[in-house]
Amino acid sequence: MKKIIEGDEWNIAQKGFYPESSLFTESIFSLSNGYMGGRGNFEEGYSGKTLRSFFHAGVYYPDKPQYGWYKIGYPKINNKIINSTDVIGIKISINGRILDLACTSFKDFKITLNMKNGLLERSFVIFDEFKRETAVNVKRFISIHNKNLLAVSFSLTPLNYEGHIDFEPYMNSIVESEDVQGKEKIFWEEVNKDNGTLVVRTKKTDFYLATSMNVKIYEDETLKGIPFIPVVKDCYVGHRFATDLKEGKTLRIEKYVSCYNSRNLSRSEVAVKSKENLKSIVDCSFNDLLSFSEKLWKKKWDKIDIEIDGDVSAQQAIRYNLFMLNPTFTGEDKKLNISPKGFSGEKYSGSTYWDTEIFCAPYFLYTQPKAARNLLLYRYNHLKKAIENAKLLRLKGALYPMMTLDGSEGHAEWEITLMEIHRNSAIVYAIYNYIRSTDDYDYIANYGFEVIGNIARFWADRVTYKKDKDIYIILGVTGPDEFHNNVNNNWYTNFMTKWVLNYAYEQAGWLKNYNVKKYKEICKKYDFTEEEFNNWRIISEKLYINKNKKLSIYVQFDGYLETEDIFMNKEFTKNMFPIVQSWSWDRINRSSIIKQADVILGLYLFNGVFTFKEKKDNFDFYEPRTAHDSSLSACIYSIIASEIGYLDKAYNLYKRASRLDLNDYNNDTADGLHITSMSGSWMSIVMGFAGFRINNGIISFKPNIPKVWKRLSFKINVKERYFLIVITQNKFCIELESGDEILIGVNKKRYKISKGKFLEVNINSNN
Amino acid sequence: MKKIIEGDEWNIAQKGFYPESSLFTESIFSLSNGYMGGRGNFEEGYSGKTLRSFFHAGVYYPDKPQYGWYKIGYPKINNKIINSTDVIGIKISINGRILDLACTSFKDFKITLNMKNGLLERSFVIFDEFKRETAVNVKRFISIHNKNLLAVSFSLTPLNYEGHIDFEPYMNSIVESEDVQGKEKIFWEEVNKDNGTLVVRTKKTDFYLATSMNVKIYEDETLKGIPFIPVVKDCYVGHRFATDLKEGKTLRIEKYVSCYNSRNLSRSEVAVKSKENLKSIVDCSFNDLLSFSEKLWKKKWDKIDIEIDGDVSAQQAIRYNLFMLNPTFTGEDKKLNISPKGFSGEKYSGSTYWDTEIFCAPYFLYTQPKAARNLLLYRYNHLKKAIENAKLLRLKGALYPMMTLDGSEGHAEWEITLMEIHRNSAIVYAIYNYIRSTDDYDYIANYGFEVIGNIARFWADRVTYKKDKDIYIILGVTGPDEFHNNVNNNWYTNFMTKWVLNYAYEQAGWLKNYNVKKYKEICKKYDFTEEEFNNWRIISEKLYINKNKKLSIYVQFDGYLETEDIFMNKEFTKNMFPIVQSWSWDRINRSSIIKQADVILGLYLFNGVFTFKEKKDNFDFYEPRTAHDSSLSACIYSIIASEIGYLDKAYNLYKRASRLDLNDYNNDTADGLHITSMSGSWMSIVMGFAGFRINNGIISFKPNIPKVWKRLSFKINVKERYFLIVITQNKFCIELESGDEILIGVNKKRYKISKGKFLEVNINSNN
Repeated sequence: MKKIIEGDEWNIAQKGFYPESSLFTESIFSLSNGYMGGRGNFEEGYSGKTLRSFFHAGVYYPDKPQYGWYKIGYPKINNKIINSTDVIGIKISINGRILDLACTSFKDFKITLNMKNGLLERSFVIFDEFKRETAVNVKRFISIHNKNLLAVSFSLTPLNYEGHIDFEPYMNSIVESEDVQGKEKIFWEEVNKDNGTLVVRTKKTDFYLATSMNVKIYEDETLKGIPFIPVVKDCYVGHRFATDLKEGKTLRIEKYVSCYNSRNLSRSEVAVKSKENLKSIVDCSFNDLLSFSEKLWKKKWDKIDIEIDGDVSAQQAIRYNLFMLNPTFTGEDKKLNISPKGFSGEKYSGSTYWDTEIFCAPYFLYTQPKAARNLLLYRYNHLKKAIENAKLLRLKGALYPMMTLDGSEGHAEWEITLMEIHRNSAIVYAIYNYIRSTDDYDYIANYGFEVIGNIARFWADRVTYKKDKDIYIILGVTGPDEFHNNVNNNWYTNFMTKWVLNYAYEQAGWLKNYNVKKYKEICKKYDFTEEEFNNWRIISEKLYINKNKKLSIYVQFDGYLETEDIFMNKEFTKNMFPIVQSWSWDRINRSSIIKQADVILGLYLFNGVFTFKEKKDNFDFYEPRTAHDSSLSACIYSIIASEIGYLDKAYNLYKRASRLDLNDYNNDTADGLHITSMSGSWMSIVMGFAGFRINNGIISFKPNIPKVWKRLSFKINVKERYFLIVITQNKFCIELESGDEILIGVNKKRYKISKGKFLEVNINSNN
Repeated sequence: MKKIIEGDEWNIAQKGFYPESSLFTESIFSLSNGYMGGRGNFEEGYSGKTLRSFFHAGVYYPDKPQYGWYKIGYPKINNKIINSTDVIGIKISINGRILDLACTSFKDFKITLNMKNGLLERSFVIFDEFKRETAVNVKRFISIHNKNLLAVSFSLTPLNYEGHIDFEPYMNSIVESEDVQGKEKIFWEEVNKDNGTLVVRTKKTDFYLATSMNVKIYEDETLKGIPFIPVVKDCYVGHRFATDLKEGKTLRIEKYVSCYNSRNLSRSEVAVKSKENLKSIVDCSFNDLLSFSEKLWKKKWDKIDIEIDGDVSAQQAIRYNLFMLNPTFTGEDKKLNISPKGFSGEKYSGSTYWDTEIFCAPYFLYTQPKAARNLLLYRYNHLKKAIENAKLLRLKGALYPMMTLDGSEGHAEWEITLMEIHRNSAIVYAIYNYIRSTDDYDYIANYGFEVIGNIARFWADRVTYKKDKDIYIILGVTGPDEFHNNVNNNWYTNFMTKWVLNYAYEQAGWLKNYNVKKYKEICKKYDFTEEEFNNWRIISEKLYINKNKKLSIYVQFDGYLETEDIFMNKEFTKNMFPIVQSWSWDRINRSSIIKQADVILGLYLFNGVFTFKEKKDNFDFYEPRTAHDSSLSACIYSIIASEIGYLDKAYNLYKRASRLDLNDYNNDTADGLHITSMSGSWMSIVMGFAGFRINNGIISFKPNIPKVWKRLSFKINVKERYFLIVITQNKFCIELESGDEILIGVNKKRYKISKGKFLEVNINSNN
């Protein structure tokens, strides 16, 4: 695909419309506010290739899972986020012809997303064989101020004729979901409706959704009182209007839609709330409403923005990543989490993966710590189900699901569901990371240790003791590198397990001192004993770690070095990606190609434990063999590349990570955006180029920004303090905006900084 | 399940009807003749648990395959044998009440299968609250004499009342298939019909099927001319009758159905043929038609029967196995093959697996060599598709599908589809075995070598060269033991490959001498060169074989000895079978439990290559770790047990193999019979207890029959000779019934026998 995204630091723009890339464009221009959201579909409809989708967070349906032969641990049902009421739609017919960019002739197409306020604007000029031209301009936003509001402003200006227009703003719940296995594709049925409100419910899960709409019509700036004919069909409410079009005059249709679902409301309330909300904004203009939302966006940007001077492409990319990631998870609702596609597509069924703990949690942790805490509580609230899941597999402790919407397992491929169990350790790591960044020790006592202990218990049961060597090994797993299934002693899994068991042992001891009542309470609840804690320590000590001294690398799994050794750049040309569509699965499995950061991910997570040489040697070995087939790969490699001084490589990997969707590197943005990897871009900058770390309780930086960057600045929140960081090629500057005095490290030195003070350190960014 | 099958040497009987086992009973009393067949359903219908199925060999439908994520090599469609027109049905209503054993009160239920002639007979007495009793007797057979004929005789005798009966013999094509993934469950649509004939076609595959019926009604033995009302609905033809029932008089409804499908006929012919056939038998009685079929059965039994004196259970079992296996594949149609469930169930979709080459081919080879040849030609005719399949996976040569109906791959689980590739070698082995048993060398020249060469070429590409050790290894396979997926150097796969490559090399040399024209022709067709042939030999020599000297065993795969060592009898109690419903897949994978004969299968296939000690040591090691979860396991272990003198073990394993369905050992006979393992029972006797082998061209026996057996006798056809073998506890007797004089071995001695001569050798069966 050619590169079609343009724009600037604050805007994402596409000039010209490319039917072959219509799905890509729809994904790129997705909008959401955490409560609801959808793809960049066209209000007037589009009969070409389209995924017309609008989702409500947490509103799902139990689909039939897809698998070959059933195995224990597979889900009996598969919860999936579903397409819900189409609220953007306005049917348009000009001079008797339906407006549809798949059929209508048009020119000067442009679509722009303004990341300052979330306004999506689309303009084009349509024409017919009589050379009648109409300028069209469409604006849409989903408010982050009024979480239940979506607004559309649809303007039409006949440039050289007088004519006639029919239009019908509507709400329609007869919408298909694409990514479903069962026979049903439409999950809604009508509850009731009136002229302005439609209430529908999901068939099995009984979620209610009320949508209300209000339509205002202007000619130039004059409000017009045109009567409409109500169009009332099953699961559909429309208002049909007809009027004249006057040359040079702009007809503007404003559509305001209020949406309430029953996730946090009673079923009887949704319609009431929906109507009330619409009523409360009846006197506000489109621009008023947009400005309320814009003000909140400004507040948000003040906290989360990363400024990059001297590199528009990089600046645009990180803002796009943050713009899309933030409204995917606002952190307000503990029952919600982050799905790999957010609100931009059905793929991954809206479910939560280990992406949350390893890739998303750090971003939220350092910008919005309360949101990060809710990500942890999400897992705490699913502990009971994770214990049940382990029990089903005849294992002790807790095994968290590979993917979930409600705590139960939604995945059904044995090599992943039953074997990609490093996900369990990621949950402990996220707790550890939260604690070391916030010093919120009460979290361990009140929630964390129950999770940590049950995961440690799982691992203590899942390992295998080898008597002859007096070691513990871990058989039959799939590491983060999903290209090698059912392997033994995946280094990442083993290392994480070793760490988890020891951390759990330590936390048990710590908790006994910190809060003996809570300690006893938890021990009683789960039958934990000191003997069991000690056993975790012993297993941790004896857990096997596979290192090849000759190659000076950690070996990804037993037998990895026996595989056919393949270098990505020798075997794969551009048109062979994704490689699973070029090579058969067995061939990939018996080669050295790895899907994504595996050993390297471990080196990143436990950065303080490994030497510079270890990082360099492993990077040198694994990077040429890595396909970066997962969106979660390039960002991690970029961080390690920064650390070992491979600055060009780090920069290229950052671009790959941050422009993954804008440049469609993986040829799959059409399905939706890679939301969970967007925080990876943030990490590539903050952990990578700025070299931010917390080791042994000390916040430190090892700055080294790309040569083309004149200045990098961002804010982070650590240990209840806000820091502003500014890095240039020669200087590292830090200001403590709020919180108590603290010691920080820059490169190898330590500095004390206090509130309102600005520290400037000379650095040589080229070392 | 309690043991409910009784009977004797020639009959399978069940007294009493058990609704909880209705599916088991239906499976056990399946009938077929190779052209068509179905389960032991009740003519009058049954509203309880039932799989009402009737199949036509090779009449399939392209279903949607089931898998998680698509991988290269997975089928886009999945051909499946489908349920076809219900031809046995007769609706019965006595005194206004529908006869249905799920509702009607009854006693004295008995169902019997006569294996001499294939007659299925069912009798019971129904009664109502007025104590009106009616004796019912139903007979049914599918003719092996007239391949298109099925006949039913349904008799009712009011024992103590005068009454009224309505009945409706019918043909109905609105029949659901159960084991389908797509939305459609009914695959037939009507073409046309008249009073006596129904023509239907399959929706996508356009198979035509005509069924015609003729009904005769008798009172006692007097033919009654009762008029009927035609019942004509979509895809349905029925004849509705009503008449009086007289006390003590038997009303008998005879239904004759003729069935023709368009597999080997033009679509326009099916109805004509069907009517003609029915016309041709109009003057024959039920018993006449049965006797024609019985005569052919007698001829068949003369060739295939195995007689066991002193052990009714063993005798009944082997006859049942042969009775079911034979009509599944008559060997007349090269486009047909043998599916694991035959005509007794939908599971495995009527497809061909490697079961054919390893388990079924030997039985047909030694009883009906021409049929065996057609099994080989089936694969020869699919060679082109196997080459395409390998190409799709970027491999050279040919990879035959894991399951197929038409040569294309129907399987979609990567660890099997792409990794259980030992199936390829089984095809070469079957050719080798055919040649050594028939001396039909022309087969190699005309067909065999093309297959052998392309399979050898596949292996030469699929192996991995390890430079450091100068060996070839095979990575990423699943052996016959499907409990361990994606392993390296599965011993069975490696050994088979080593053998195939060398055999292919030898055959190339042999063919050059034998028929240089053909040799050149084949070399040209596939670009074979002497260099390539030599390379096969080199790879064969250097192919790695994993042997553990300390344990004195062949190691099933790299790392097998690292798995958690589990003994079946220690971990699994009876109610834990099948173990995949007790243990999670990962737990099984990382344990030493094996599903079925794997190393032991290799020792059996290359019996002459391995020493007595090797067989014993490997048996001792692997047998306690074997779950026999596949029906293809016990028979192989039984053979090796016989060979190493574990006679009790061999006998128990034979019983497990041969009574697998009759005793429902795997709790899954409800789904259908284990047809492909039935030939395994034959092998347990002929290869096992009689110790029949061909090594270095010499036919030999090492007899050792179970202690309770007074006498074992059977016939085999080897090297164009018919042998009758009789074994007692003390004597081994052999007669050459036809063919030239030949040298045979009995235990360690050799004897010359000639036609009509009877050789008797004293043996000590207890050594």
